Amino acid sequence: MNPDITKERENATFDVEKLTNILDGGPEKTKRRREIESLVFSDPDFQEDDPNFLSRSERYDQAVRKSAQMILKLREYGIADPEEIYFYKNMAKGNQNEAMGLHFAMFLPTLYSQCDPEQSKKWLPLAESFQAVGTYAQTELGHGTHLRGLETTATYDPATQEFVLNSPTVSSIKWWPGGLGKTSNYAIVLAQLYSLGNCRGLHAFIVPIRDMNTHEPLPGIVVGDIGPKFGFNEVDNGFLKLENVRIPRENMLMKYAKVDPDGTYVKPPSAKLTYGTMVFIRSMIVGESARALMKSCTIAIRYSAVRHQSEIRPGEPEPQILDYQTQQYKLFPLLSMAYAFTFVGQYMHQTYHRITADINQGDFSELPELHALSAGLKAFTTWETNSAIEVCRMSCGGHGYSRSSALPDIYVEFTPTCTYEGENTVMMLQTARYLVKSYRQAKAGQQLSGIVSYLNEAGDRRLQPQPVAARPTVVDINDLTSLVEVYKLRAAILVELAAKSIQQELQRRKSQEDAWNNSSIDLVRASDAHCHYVVVKLFTDKLGEVGDTAIHSVLSDLALLYAQNGITKNSGDFLQAGLLSVPQVLQISVRIKELLSKLRRNAVALVDAFDVHDKKLNSVLGRYDGNVYEHMFEWARRSPLNNTQVHESFHKYLKPLRSKL
Amino acid sequence: MNPDITKERENATFDVEKLTNILDGGPEKTKRRREIESLVFSDPDFQEDDPNFLSRSERYDQAVRKSAQMILKLREYGIADPEEIYFYKNMAKGNQNEAMGLHFAMFLPTLYSQCDPEQSKKWLPLAESFQAVGTYAQTELGHGTHLRGLETTATYDPATQEFVLNSPTVSSIKWWPGGLGKTSNYAIVLAQLYSLGNCRGLHAFIVPIRDMNTHEPLPGIVVGDIGPKFGFNEVDNGFLKLENVRIPRENMLMKYAKVDPDGTYVKPPSAKLTYGTMVFIRSMIVGESARALMKSCTIAIRYSAVRHQSEIRPGEPEPQILDYQTQQYKLFPLLSMAYAFTFVGQYMHQTYHRITADINQGDFSELPELHALSAGLKAFTTWETNSAIEVCRMSCGGHGYSRSSALPDIYVEFTPTCTYEGENTVMMLQTARYLVKSYRQAKAGQQLSGIVSYLNEAGDRRLQPQPVAARPTVVDINDLTSLVEVYKLRAAILVELAAKSIQQELQRRKSQEDAWNNSSIDLVRASDAHCHYVVVKLFTDKLGEVGDTAIHSVLSDLALLYAQNGITKNSGDFLQAGLLSVPQVLQISVRIKELLSKLRRNAVALVDAFDVHDKKLNSVLGRYDGNVYEHMFEWARRSPLNNTQVHESFHKYLKPLRSKL
Repeated sequence: MNPDITKERENATFDVEKLTNILDGGPEKTKRRREIESLVFSDPDFQEDDPNFLSRSERYDQAVRKSAQMILKLREYGIADPEEIYFYKNMAKGNQNEAMGLHFAMFLPTLYSQCDPEQSKKWLPLAESFQAVGTYAQTELGHGTHLRGLETTATYDPATQEFVLNSPTVSSIKWWPGGLGKTSNYAIVLAQLYSLGNCRGLHAFIVPIRDMNTHEPLPGIVVGDIGPKFGFNEVDNGFLKLENVRIPRENMLMKYAKVDPDGTYVKPPSAKLTYGTMVFIRSMIVGESARALMKSCTIAIRYSAVRHQSEIRPGEPEPQILDYQTQQYKLFPLLSMAYAFTFVGQYMHQTYHRITADINQGDFSELPELHALSAGLKAFTTWETNSAIEVCRMSCGGHGYSRSSALPDIYVEFTPTCTYEGENTVMMLQTARYLVKSYRQAKAGQQLSGIVSYLNEAGDRRLQPQPVAARPTVVDINDLTSLVEVYKLRAAILVELAAKSIQQELQRRKSQEDAWNNSSIDLVRASDAHCHYVVVKLFTDKLGEVGDTAIHSVLSDLALLYAQNGITKNSGDFLQAGLLSVPQVLQISVRIKELLSKLRRNAVALVDAFDVHDKKLNSVLGRYDGNVYEHMFEWARRSPLNNTQVHESFHKYLKPLRSKL
Repeated sequence: MNPDITKERENATFDVEKLTNILDGGPEKTKRRREIESLVFSDPDFQEDDPNFLSRSERYDQAVRKSAQMILKLREYGIADPEEIYFYKNMAKGNQNEAMGLHFAMFLPTLYSQCDPEQSKKWLPLAESFQAVGTYAQTELGHGTHLRGLETTATYDPATQEFVLNSPTVSSIKWWPGGLGKTSNYAIVLAQLYSLGNCRGLHAFIVPIRDMNTHEPLPGIVVGDIGPKFGFNEVDNGFLKLENVRIPRENMLMKYAKVDPDGTYVKPPSAKLTYGTMVFIRSMIVGESARALMKSCTIAIRYSAVRHQSEIRPGEPEPQILDYQTQQYKLFPLLSMAYAFTFVGQYMHQTYHRITADINQGDFSELPELHALSAGLKAFTTWETNSAIEVCRMSCGGHGYSRSSALPDIYVEFTPTCTYEGENTVMMLQTARYLVKSYRQAKAGQQLSGIVSYLNEAGDRRLQPQPVAARPTVVDINDLTSLVEVYKLRAAILVELAAKSIQQELQRRKSQEDAWNNSSIDLVRASDAHCHYVVVKLFTDKLGEVGDTAIHSVLSDLALLYAQNGITKNSGDFLQAGLLSVPQVLQISVRIKELLSKLRRNAVALVDAFDVHDKKLNSVLGRYDGNVYEHMFEWARRSPLNNTQVHESFHKYLKPLRSKL
């Protein structure tokens, strides 16, 4: 154990294990998570080489092997609870992805939810036994977020009772679905349904794409891998071009909408039913943001504790990087963000399950709010995390750039969350739509409830932007409740500003749509402020649940840092609205420095509490024992370019060059 | 040609070619650059596969081949002017790096500048004929920015008149030098010189590391590649462990410092002599920031012009992404930044050459200012560009994540500039040291000149942070000169705040060093504001040189957008200091929207003016002809995972899985 890091742990003021329990949701949960994780790291079948040493094809090969292995082992161990499966897979995957991820995340769930009884009987056994390995083919080369723009067609032919699927243009080629390129033999294809000459909109079809025995692509199917990406290189995101592919009528998923044998189209009863999955995945992504931050902070903070560099006082030994105020200022706000997003993730998880229970009893009343919240928070947390990972990486100096740090992997695997499951700007605008609608309802005298209830004061004069001096400064900058209030007012004011911008555009005779587009900068800003408020609020609420005094104290410091740092970064908003005075903003800067130096002694313990196992972290810089440099040297020596002492290029180019000059 | 992009070009209000000339520095320069570039893209020897399709070893192989080829061709063409070599290599390299880059960038220049006449006679012919291929080994596994911390030792043995080199610890292993792992047979090694029992500090030694004939590592040399990185994977950044390696006394570079045969150490005459190279490289990096931004903006803006998505008005066809206000808000400020940094790069280039001429005549007076400016601007421009590339990538939706977009490559090749040649936070603090020193001189009554002359007003009451209402609002937010003034005052106030923070810490009986560390957040902020001011000022100054009315008009809009956007992003600073009023800040938001919609029609022409050839861009999204989707499909089909229809993993894992369940 590196003595620096031992010293850090000795200095901590709280019981790390207890904090881990809070993060896991109780000591029993921690215990069970560790049991499951130990099944992976004690298993010789999961000892493997760093994927960064492999070619793309080898990486994919290793990922498929691992996917198959995980299926067998989970059955062997009898692990069936989704959360436990998640722990197991997360540990086994490390910083990489699952080759067959879409089979579990989209293919099976879609079959479960959209097959009629007949179809269930046919397809579920095939899919559950991996005779049929599948994916979900929605996005096209030229079409992403906007589903109505999809071009793939499924035209019903009553003569043969078949659908004929086609990719009529280059831009209609299915593009991006995970596992489509090489792994899957089936795809659920989203296509515009045409029957009896009418377009009936998007529907889902089960399309066989490869022969179940030989795995060769079937006639009319052009399928393959979309090529190397920033990350996800063990996943065969694929393309699919359909050329007059005929499938039986029964391959349309018919639980809701139907096409009768004669071609008569039967509408689905409600459009709200697919809403839930989307909300679920977005809520999950909030938790993924927290986990990516945990990993990144663990690496950057542990390494900053063992890395010595430069000098603060001349003649003295090089100090730990963590003693530099600038390093603390880079990392501790991100540490506080990791905690904040963890608690927000827990809240979203609980709320989703609560509302799902309501929905199952026919009560849809809270769904719109959850939908809006999950969209905005997905965008807010992924954008923040995306930048944060890179700050962590760069805070490690040059070594952060080495794949051995794991930070490049963490970044490239995380960054697509800003785009997939709803592009972030689009997500922010969805939330804004809900906020503006709520604002208008409140203005019209309707009493709002739930998280937007602060807009009830919308008619109030207090919400007008005012010169700074005009607002009485009753805010206590050291009091979290008071800061929550300030964040709330900022959100209210920015929602109002956005709504007024729309109003002004309308007054200039713009159409509703143009007024919306011409106000979209303000709308995104309003959503952002709303989400920021929600995060500060939920972090503060969480403190009320923490009984342990020592932990309560350190978490309060983190929450305060999170809230105050957010104010400094957006001080213009708070000053502009007259919510804080200039002296208060200056005080906050001073207070932040104090918090940084107060949190310094607990920094390592606060990342230890995340309890990210070395095997899952896979970072030489973030090792629990702090023995960084020995392992970095060892890792480098295993790198494939060192398999030979002399690379063939010497004989091919360098030696001949001399004689040519 | 894609009709959307043709339409964009028809709508432009200015002559693109004339703007390209301005960026190149004159029509003759444009012509010559294109001549040189055409030598590459018309050359079949440079037709090669996308490096993203290759394994690490193949990438390295291809890069070495290309390095050797470039050497031969440049000699064949008789291209010897450094700028022309730069054009040629830049075109040939695309978004990747040169395997032998360090030989040219560091090995040769160090030999030229630090060999004594005897040494020049011996080493230059070897290095110029590539008998000796070399690198520059400075950083160590545990040591980067802080040179005094380096641990490698070179101990003089008078008995044999040799130096004995050692890596005494794991952390002293040389780490990171480009070309060290596999390519070089020589390294200039920086080591602590010990002679007659005294440590004489860091000196440079020529160390043979591989046999010149067989290329096998020499005895006592442990050398290899440091393993895969985020990018730079065609470069063999290496490690070097020295175990009692003996080199003749004459292998110490002796132009300045010397060790006599008996071990007597002779000090160098001045320490300032190595200063220049550092300043030069940092100034160059400012230009690299501009070039990375040009590429990224070209890709994102051209693709946004041909990409249609979602809907603004229901029922109408999907609009070009570029019509969304949020998309304009993402990209146009970055476009303005690309222009700003280009002009700053030109300024740094000119200033460097002007001051070098002075230095050669013994006048060092402007060097400290240039040193401070190059450090800060290197940090400011690389940080800004680093974030900007990722914004461009994410603005392309999912396809930005594909390696075919080139944006992942541009990012990973660019991002190390934030760390190398001086870690950015350290750079900002160097600039801050100069600013605080200047501030104190001004306060002591000294009259400052040059770019910090604004600190002459430091004693003045006007620079005190004041409540917003108190300052007379004489600023015209639509006038660039007025905005330059505001940026200047912001910088002055933040320098003063930082200086006062140090003062307060000293009053609390902190040491100078602790006071500095405890103020470093404020110091970085002050440097940042100073650099921001310089950029706005230089952009504004440049407008004065532009004669063409149409170009002057569009560049003025860009400069205004750059300045106003910077204010919105940092509105807290301006409000806090009372430099702008709340209504002014609100007006600026409105004005920015107007500028976005005004710049819309010229966006494509403004990136066309960068004249980045398709071959250099290597992006399917950024193609000049806008034919994106066909080429993306074609690119994907060439991907190695599509070499076979059925990947072997099907037979190895997927098929057997079925029978095991």
